[in-house]
Amino acid sequence: MKKMIITGFSGFVSRHFLNYLVENNLEYDVLGLDVNPPKFELSEYEPALKMDFKIANLLDKEVVEDIIKEYRPDYILHLASFSSVAYSWQHPADCFTNNTNIFLNVTEALRNNNLLECRVLSVGSSEEYGNVTKEQLPLREDMQLFPVSPYAVARVAQENMAKVLADSFDMNIMLTRSFNHMGPFQDERFVIPSFIRRILDIRDAGKTAGEIETGDTTIIRDFVDVRDVVRAYYKLLTEGKSGEVYNICRGQGVALSEVIDIIADIVGVEVSTRVNPDFVRPGDNQIIIGSYDKIQADTGWESEIPLRQTLEDMVAHMSK
Amino acid sequence: MKKMIITGFSGFVSRHFLNYLVENNLEYDVLGLDVNPPKFELSEYEPALKMDFKIANLLDKEVVEDIIKEYRPDYILHLASFSSVAYSWQHPADCFTNNTNIFLNVTEALRNNNLLECRVLSVGSSEEYGNVTKEQLPLREDMQLFPVSPYAVARVAQENMAKVLADSFDMNIMLTRSFNHMGPFQDERFVIPSFIRRILDIRDAGKTAGEIETGDTTIIRDFVDVRDVVRAYYKLLTEGKSGEVYNICRGQGVALSEVIDIIADIVGVEVSTRVNPDFVRPGDNQIIIGSYDKIQADTGWESEIPLRQTLEDMVAHMSK
Repeated sequence: MKKMIITGFSGFVSRHFLNYLVENNLEYDVLGLDVNPPKFELSEYEPALKMDFKIANLLDKEVVEDIIKEYRPDYILHLASFSSVAYSWQHPADCFTNNTNIFLNVTEALRNNNLLECRVLSVGSSEEYGNVTKEQLPLREDMQLFPVSPYAVARVAQENMAKVLADSFDMNIMLTRSFNHMGPFQDERFVIPSFIRRILDIRDAGKTAGEIETGDTTIIRDFVDVRDVVRAYYKLLTEGKSGEVYNICRGQGVALSEVIDIIADIVGVEVSTRVNPDFVRPGDNQIIIGSYDKIQADTGWESEIPLRQTLEDMVAHMSK
Repeated sequence: MKKMIITGFSGFVSRHFLNYLVENNLEYDVLGLDVNPPKFELSEYEPALKMDFKIANLLDKEVVEDIIKEYRPDYILHLASFSSVAYSWQHPADCFTNNTNIFLNVTEALRNNNLLECRVLSVGSSEEYGNVTKEQLPLREDMQLFPVSPYAVARVAQENMAKVLADSFDMNIMLTRSFNHMGPFQDERFVIPSFIRRILDIRDAGKTAGEIETGDTTIIRDFVDVRDVVRAYYKLLTEGKSGEVYNICRGQGVALSEVIDIIADIVGVEVSTRVNPDFVRPGDNQIIIGSYDKIQADTGWESEIPLRQTLEDMVAHMSK
């Protein structure tokens, strides 16, 4: 059985990735790593998968080295990151070094243990594109990057480093620029689950209408269902070209106001919005839409789950 | 008197920068920082400059914080770096994190001590451009970067981070992409001083002709005299626009073979070359030439010292 390490194991993406493996009868020996224990039981995925989990701080080079030396993975799904743009504004240096150091600890451990054939998926972000104009849409992988947040700079650095390791050290590293993803189990601090929670609160309070505070709801994003994202991750991990970076997106933009309208319709309440200037992020792009031509060409992937379906599933999950 | 910290103080660039200050009657209170003591006496620059030096490992965040808190600099000439491309191939992670962490320790210490007005020069490299085609020459600052070594990736990351700090945290950081520089006092491990040393050895052995082993001498580089470089650094530190990156180059290419011919002519011996494949760096660009239009437009700088003059001064210095 092939061995796979999943870093950032306790996050919501990892959980969907495990679901994907099980639903598709893909058998792996999985070792999860995270600083926090998962909120689910490993037994949920057994015996379909062979499951193990270790608490591990990937900032500790020796810990990473020991684990990789002992486990000798065939695949690494590297989800671990300090992924909050907001946090990165408060702690630019920490965000930067933590993201890149974690990645380098993993790749150096592979190099030091002659595991160059191990296939690694390095996850990046649409934030890497930075300030773009409407004329440049949809965003394509070969465009020049203008990262505008410390988080985005860290992601670009990780991507550049991954490319060098792939091109010049013969490592097998595939790279993504993942666009905004959402789905069940997502933390309610993220924008869409936070909308859903507050709209559910209106209904649960017995009202048929209410108001929520938001940031700028005219901004347009390319939202993709996390279950489509993990399918892309699996395809890239097993079939992607080393050293290549792939957008993972739906290829369609939707305004946050439209997302709110759909959620309100699903929940069955009337929702009005009021902009709280504190929630508006000044450097935010007005519109982000990606092209998925490249991943489609190389792996056949495209998103499958319609936006409304994703939102219905999230509402159902959060209504429990 | 304005206070200036010079990191990487014990390197050859710093020495020329101090000379520049003294020769131009520019009075500063200078604090040098380096992991190694300088090979010159501070008194060489006194009383024209107020001089102090501390052994400091800039990787140690608290050390940096303490020094900056106490000294409260008006300027920082940030020369410290792990600047060997060769070393970066052997230790990609170390090279990367050491370069970026040092820079971030300095900038975070400034932020934490409300020294946003301090003007910082962040030194980068023409290596950041990576693989370019002849059609793209001369290299201009707004071109897309394709860093191909871990060293170059680190430099790009530092530059991107510096831009974010300048644009969004109102810090005063000017950035350079410095092309190959050379001059007296340069370490003999660098390519031009190593040529000079071996050509001097031929003469000093009493011969009129000899052979030296080289890498690929057909490669073309844009060499600039370190004394021109430090003049550019001073101009950028005092007059450059924050958040802007500037090429520092002569704007002319010269083949290594031509440099060898000039040195041989100065020394007065006949030199033939033999390529040692071990010295050829596979990823090296064939030709690198920059444009200095931007720095000239913003500060009036252009290189002044002709190539032959630089080589004559280096030969004289190394003949001592």
